[in-house]
Amino acid sequence: MLDAGLVCHLGVTVDGAPLVLPTGYGRIGDVLYLHGSSAATSLRAAEATPVCVTVTLVDGIVYARSAFSHSVNYRCAVVHGLARRVDDGTEKLAGLRALAEHMAPGSWGHVREPTRKELAATLLLALDTTEASVKVRSGPPGDEDDDVATAQCWAGVLPVVTTWGEPQPCPQLEAGVAVPGYVANRS
Amino acid sequence: MLDAGLVCHLGVTVDGAPLVLPTGYGRIGDVLYLHGSSAATSLRAAEATPVCVTVTLVDGIVYARSAFSHSVNYRCAVVHGLARRVDDGTEKLAGLRALAEHMAPGSWGHVREPTRKELAATLLLALDTTEASVKVRSGPPGDEDDDVATAQCWAGVLPVVTTWGEPQPCPQLEAGVAVPGYVANRS
Repeated sequence: MLDAGLVCHLGVTVDGAPLVLPTGYGRIGDVLYLHGSSAATSLRAAEATPVCVTVTLVDGIVYARSAFSHSVNYRCAVVHGLARRVDDGTEKLAGLRALAEHMAPGSWGHVREPTRKELAATLLLALDTTEASVKVRSGPPGDEDDDVATAQCWAGVLPVVTTWGEPQPCPQLEAGVAVPGYVANRS
Repeated sequence: MLDAGLVCHLGVTVDGAPLVLPTGYGRIGDVLYLHGSSAATSLRAAEATPVCVTVTLVDGIVYARSAFSHSVNYRCAVVHGLARRVDDGTEKLAGLRALAEHMAPGSWGHVREPTRKELAATLLLALDTTEASVKVRSGPPGDEDDDVATAQCWAGVLPVVTTWGEPQPCPQLEAGVAVPGYVANRS
């Protein structure tokens, strides 16, 4: 499930109030890596304090026969824990690579790797996913029998489908650079 | 932007730690309505305490020439405030209707409205959106000039496209009930 999401929502406590921000992530085994600017308040606030990372996939809208039974089909993973700042150079590069491979699979071997200065400007957090919980809602509406018997309206699920559009080359890209397979055929 | 999202991520503080959960929402003017079971920990924790509600739309993956410049095109609205529990019957019904109209537009006039018992089992929260902040990243990669000049790899944006799939009728639906326009032609 974590592998199927694109961004997660990172929840931290800043000055006693919750802050929830979308964040890229990657995974190596049981460890989730999140990154951002070393200057980002939310990420700095996440160091060594309890955080919550939530990845949600919306699969469909459930049209029921009663307003009360309207619902959403979704999958959601919620990870709680203490985030650890990654300072070790080897783990940091591996974590950033996992992040890049999650967000833009296949690209790492083709792009310039981070410089020492870029690494210093990047804050990488590691979070153990062994305390994750998963919630899933799937299938047709769960209407009461009375509503099934008497309702006149349509009921069912309208799937939400997420696909890739046509790749848009960078305006500064030299003519003739083909769209690579890892972009054109991304699954 | 709030109208374009499907679910939000609600952040609350439970026992000193942040909790982030996906939640349906609706809007009337400047007021955002969230609902859930009266028994839900996260929603009960949100009453009269600071909450954060974040709606994120992922528009594309930005493939840069350096790993450091990889990015995501997105739009994100972050709303901070104190959530107010809605007890007034008229506002509660209006809020739930706004929620249904956001999640399943066009359906309210066709479904059975909530009973008194269902209303009691539903916790509705209202949140003022006037303190919302919006973050947007759009456009091509922001690579350094050196990388643009020397890189050999493709660079650009792979759009993320969210569409509706084929409506799936409820197995208990009587034969011959056509898919209504508000489902079949949902924008």
